[in-house]
Amino acid sequence: MLFFSITIFAQEPVDFVNPFIGTSNYGATFPGPIAPRGMASISPFNVAGPQNKLEKDSQWLSNPYVKENTFLTGFSQVNISGVGCPELGVLLLMPTTGALEIDHLKYGSTYKNEVAKAGYYSVDLDKYNVKGEFTASKRVGVSKFTFPKGQSNILLNLGLGLTNEEGAMVRVVSSTEIEGMRSVGSFCYNSPEDAYPIYFVAKFSKPAAKFGVWKKTPNYKGVEAQWMTYNGKTRMMNNTIKTVVGDSIGTYFTYKFDKQEVVEVKIGVSYVSIANARENLEKETGNKSFETVYKETRDEWNEELSKILVEGGTKDENTIFYTALYHTLIHPNVLNDVNGEYPVIKRSKIAKTDGTRYTTFSLWDTYRNVHQLMSLVYPKQQSDMIKSMLDMYDENGWLPKWELNSTETFTMVGDPASIVIVDACLKGIQDFDIYKAYYAMLKGADKMENNPLRPGLKEYIEKGYLSTNFKGPVSTTQEYNTSDYAISLLAKALGEKDDYKRFTKRSLSYQKLFDKDLKLLRPRLPNGKWYEPFDPNSGANFEENVGFIEGNAWQYAFMVPHDMKGLIKLMGGEKVFSEQLQKVFDTKQFDMANEPDIANPYLFNYVKGEEWKSQEMVKKLVAEYFQNAPKGLPGNDDTGTMSAWLVYSMMGIYPISPGDPIYTITAPLFHRITIKLDPRYYKKDSIVIQRQINNDGKINSIEINGKSLNSFFISHDEFVNGTMLKVIQN
Amino acid sequence: MLFFSITIFAQEPVDFVNPFIGTSNYGATFPGPIAPRGMASISPFNVAGPQNKLEKDSQWLSNPYVKENTFLTGFSQVNISGVGCPELGVLLLMPTTGALEIDHLKYGSTYKNEVAKAGYYSVDLDKYNVKGEFTASKRVGVSKFTFPKGQSNILLNLGLGLTNEEGAMVRVVSSTEIEGMRSVGSFCYNSPEDAYPIYFVAKFSKPAAKFGVWKKTPNYKGVEAQWMTYNGKTRMMNNTIKTVVGDSIGTYFTYKFDKQEVVEVKIGVSYVSIANARENLEKETGNKSFETVYKETRDEWNEELSKILVEGGTKDENTIFYTALYHTLIHPNVLNDVNGEYPVIKRSKIAKTDGTRYTTFSLWDTYRNVHQLMSLVYPKQQSDMIKSMLDMYDENGWLPKWELNSTETFTMVGDPASIVIVDACLKGIQDFDIYKAYYAMLKGADKMENNPLRPGLKEYIEKGYLSTNFKGPVSTTQEYNTSDYAISLLAKALGEKDDYKRFTKRSLSYQKLFDKDLKLLRPRLPNGKWYEPFDPNSGANFEENVGFIEGNAWQYAFMVPHDMKGLIKLMGGEKVFSEQLQKVFDTKQFDMANEPDIANPYLFNYVKGEEWKSQEMVKKLVAEYFQNAPKGLPGNDDTGTMSAWLVYSMMGIYPISPGDPIYTITAPLFHRITIKLDPRYYKKDSIVIQRQINNDGKINSIEINGKSLNSFFISHDEFVNGTMLKVIQN
Repeated sequence: MLFFSITIFAQEPVDFVNPFIGTSNYGATFPGPIAPRGMASISPFNVAGPQNKLEKDSQWLSNPYVKENTFLTGFSQVNISGVGCPELGVLLLMPTTGALEIDHLKYGSTYKNEVAKAGYYSVDLDKYNVKGEFTASKRVGVSKFTFPKGQSNILLNLGLGLTNEEGAMVRVVSSTEIEGMRSVGSFCYNSPEDAYPIYFVAKFSKPAAKFGVWKKTPNYKGVEAQWMTYNGKTRMMNNTIKTVVGDSIGTYFTYKFDKQEVVEVKIGVSYVSIANARENLEKETGNKSFETVYKETRDEWNEELSKILVEGGTKDENTIFYTALYHTLIHPNVLNDVNGEYPVIKRSKIAKTDGTRYTTFSLWDTYRNVHQLMSLVYPKQQSDMIKSMLDMYDENGWLPKWELNSTETFTMVGDPASIVIVDACLKGIQDFDIYKAYYAMLKGADKMENNPLRPGLKEYIEKGYLSTNFKGPVSTTQEYNTSDYAISLLAKALGEKDDYKRFTKRSLSYQKLFDKDLKLLRPRLPNGKWYEPFDPNSGANFEENVGFIEGNAWQYAFMVPHDMKGLIKLMGGEKVFSEQLQKVFDTKQFDMANEPDIANPYLFNYVKGEEWKSQEMVKKLVAEYFQNAPKGLPGNDDTGTMSAWLVYSMMGIYPISPGDPIYTITAPLFHRITIKLDPRYYKKDSIVIQRQINNDGKINSIEINGKSLNSFFISHDEFVNGTMLKVIQN
Repeated sequence: MLFFSITIFAQEPVDFVNPFIGTSNYGATFPGPIAPRGMASISPFNVAGPQNKLEKDSQWLSNPYVKENTFLTGFSQVNISGVGCPELGVLLLMPTTGALEIDHLKYGSTYKNEVAKAGYYSVDLDKYNVKGEFTASKRVGVSKFTFPKGQSNILLNLGLGLTNEEGAMVRVVSSTEIEGMRSVGSFCYNSPEDAYPIYFVAKFSKPAAKFGVWKKTPNYKGVEAQWMTYNGKTRMMNNTIKTVVGDSIGTYFTYKFDKQEVVEVKIGVSYVSIANARENLEKETGNKSFETVYKETRDEWNEELSKILVEGGTKDENTIFYTALYHTLIHPNVLNDVNGEYPVIKRSKIAKTDGTRYTTFSLWDTYRNVHQLMSLVYPKQQSDMIKSMLDMYDENGWLPKWELNSTETFTMVGDPASIVIVDACLKGIQDFDIYKAYYAMLKGADKMENNPLRPGLKEYIEKGYLSTNFKGPVSTTQEYNTSDYAISLLAKALGEKDDYKRFTKRSLSYQKLFDKDLKLLRPRLPNGKWYEPFDPNSGANFEENVGFIEGNAWQYAFMVPHDMKGLIKLMGGEKVFSEQLQKVFDTKQFDMANEPDIANPYLFNYVKGEEWKSQEMVKKLVAEYFQNAPKGLPGNDDTGTMSAWLVYSMMGIYPISPGDPIYTITAPLFHRITIKLDPRYYKKDSIVIQRQINNDGKINSIEINGKSLNSFFISHDEFVNGTMLKVIQN
């Protein structure tokens, strides 16, 4: 009863989460339930079948659910949120009624009455008059189906999935239990040899009247194939407990109900073993009801989300804020089982942790703002993430670049792990082996041969930049510069003076790619000459181009966050800088949906007197791109990077220079924001950002603890050791 | 050292086994090691690749090895001997040297110096200069590879196999261990939904320097496939312990040797689980050396084979005799693990036995002579086989027809289980629930609806025969008659007078198919009229025809073993009978390689004064079809049926009427034969068959314990309770 009465109280942060945000416009989030940083999650799966507007096999599609699609073929039990490559989206559970049908194109259904909350999703399937409700604990998805009278079926399709990867093993243990594994990976179809298993155990609340396994047979040729009446067809294996393997297999449980009945299905997952999946299931959900699991997950979400309390916003503003915060708490996510076991990088062994092993490090995205948000609001999580990264270094010899479920996907460019670690160190989060971290960074930054993190490092060190011999040489040079800057900051803090000097110098080498005529960065040939003909516009909209990764010269023009003063100087002063910056926006080169220029709106803060432009730009962009609607993200959420941008932007501060413990300030979008601080890392209980509007909305003055700041920048220390940051708009 | 000194002693029965017999001429035996009735066995696998004369994909081929082939692609760890459909022939272990190559068409090799003994096989691989030696315990295959200096590899290919069935799961546990499963079945591609798993654990005596798994990727279409650089290619997954599944996968272990080195690989198998496969391996072979395992298996073979001692034969005669006896001791084979567990029929659960669960019941073949040989020489095994058959009845509701690894393959026609059971009962082997057996027989014989054993039973009971509405109606009627006769015998013994009468009558209904003009059995139409036009020659050489299964009217003409006197009468007396019988041989209709006419050579014994024809015919057929050579079986051994024919024929007795405890007598081919009797079932220790040749080789008189028999038939009781059967040829 408690469960149903929750909503009569005042709205809590968790009540503002709208998981539909980002489920259109390629946001790539999913609306189904997940616990904070959960390994398991359930998503309605509606991207298979030609009935759908966006279909997984007819275009590049990276998510299991698209709001405008209409044809649902199951509920996937593991999913990734907000990425640009398809991955996971497997273990498809599907309730049907009537005669058994195992072809998803035939058993799929339209649906209605979708409800999505943090930790809860429900939907009615038109074709079957079945209601599905879903929740999840960290490692267990819980599905609850309300079936009408008659024959009902629950399918677990191990063939269908979001990607082309196939291969599964399954065994019906009893009329209430299934165990098995499914091959997933590799992310973006990179390193395909790294495809890996996810293990599962499914427990049903009611014993099936009948059960079985199906297996699709490939089409064989040759003499023997003439004897195979089932060549190319699906075999049904009924009431068997045998292990079945194959590229495309599945199981069914069938019921005969005299009246409306409910069946709950708990699916525990593990990246280690079936035994661990079973233990995860038992330990996390045991005999708990659907309602209990949901309540616990909801409470956990509310506790996490309540670390920031906002006041004075509209319902929509609260919703986009807390949903964004929710999206930053999905990845990185837990990899270890309840018993602490997890597969090490490359799966050469199983290791065990006393803490939390995190995975899904989309670092090229998240080094820019997600980890800064973690350092501020969830420092224990940030610390555990860094410990996980250092464990990867121990296992693998290298810090991660884009790690997913203990595979190194090597997606994107740069060497961003250093930045994430330095950010934490310099904010006082140091409960890990800092020197190990430092040497790990140095290895990535200095080892010229067989360095998987920094291709082209030799040329970079020798010339200061990558030439067109390498892919995206300008972008990559900028990334290396940013990482080198972070390393220089840690070197300085550790008193490593030589390294400090060396990396400070290295961090500025992008300047060699500055074309004074264009006032833009430009690729150079191996012989040092400019690459030409060079079109700075080429490369917009993710077109491949010589020079830049996922962007063009305009979009990358300002991505030297650690040296804005140097860039201003290069460009010829603040006026030219400001004009160039404005031009990016005016010519619609600015891409809110991608990371290279994500900090651009704040860069007017570097020009005295023009800070109001940042204030206006941020406000305008928030209004334009972020809404309480499925299309309410500008594009791929990038495991929370777009969302973290929104969280910071709505709070009126932004970590403008990754690795540097500093925030720049714009106008908060709430009247008051209270950030609770973790006493294990911070002295104060909380800090408040208070907006004081007097007139036209431009910031007139900024005070910290009542003392004027005289700057649009504030150090992390000053911020967290203050009690109130007052932003006064006259 | 003991091992190498064995051969200096006098030759024992085991030394006469030549496992190459039957490896050509479609005998379908394999030359590799197996323990008596073993679950595991190792066969050189040389039927893949266009280099081979007989290639598995270019023709119907039912065996993993063909003597005249030359290109070897591995050593399969589970195999079936002497059957007509391809099955098992999977878990292909292959040693190679040099750079790793995982395509069997490339890594295959020619070979030389093959040696095959009971429980032992060795061969030298030309391409790699590697010697392979192989032995096996009941559930474990042991391979010993002698590698030259340099890089060596041991592949375990789980893709390649004898049939088109695919699908496997594998995990490298450590640098000395692999575990996994492979899908096999279904036999003859019947009941394909019954494909089932075989589990395995492989242990290596030396840790691999490197190891890994490969996986072949199907060729995908669609947009995403454009991103798959590996589409349709093989992925190599190195030094990983992850579980890999897929249709075509395999593992490799790689070594770097400074000098010649030996690696032993033990592969335990189970039809229950990986855990059981591991337990089988540990309990049976533990830390035993290759030599110890071989010695134990050899000793076991010798003990089994020594149950019959022959004297006075040539080396070749001894060899074909003991090899035939060896072939009758391969199937039925053990299904249960060392802990007693086995999957029940249809794999709806795992059960446990205190005794032995047997499998591979090719009953259409073996009811004719194999089980009669078991009842006589290995009555405990026969009893355990019957217990297994009754357990199948408990599990499944039906006695087996053609059972393989707990699948009912429904191969061939008839209901032969009753005959096998009755044979034992009437020979005093009764340590099982006879009444349960009796009711199980009655169910198969009487249940008219949904009877999987006896299709067409309703028509058979109503009309006395199957019409052309059914496949092979004449053959099937004959089979049902023979089974009904066996049931009548048991009914009589149990005092079930009504059943006795009813089944006696039913057993003679074949007579309604006797065409007096042709003096042959002939199919009838559903309306009762003869099927015409009818060609009695049609159906030779396994051609499909209306009337008969795997044969024609001539080949089936005498297959009413229980009513030869009735048949003689039908035909018009002994003279016509004898002429018709002779005609079968003279017109070359007789097929030594198939079962329907397998008893024909003995049928002259039913004609007073013509018994010498049987004596001559048997002698001639043995000489013509059975040799100490790969082609030394007339065709498929049919899980020992051809071999049992030879064993009986060489001993001079034959179980002429299946189910009836009676032997008919011809001239033994040895001077003296001693059959040891099992004291648990028989009163005497042994019986001797003694040949006394005086003149032209025709039998002059027969004596049992010195008393003249006055017949060419002897009851089982009289035989086993005698001490000496003396056959005197004048």
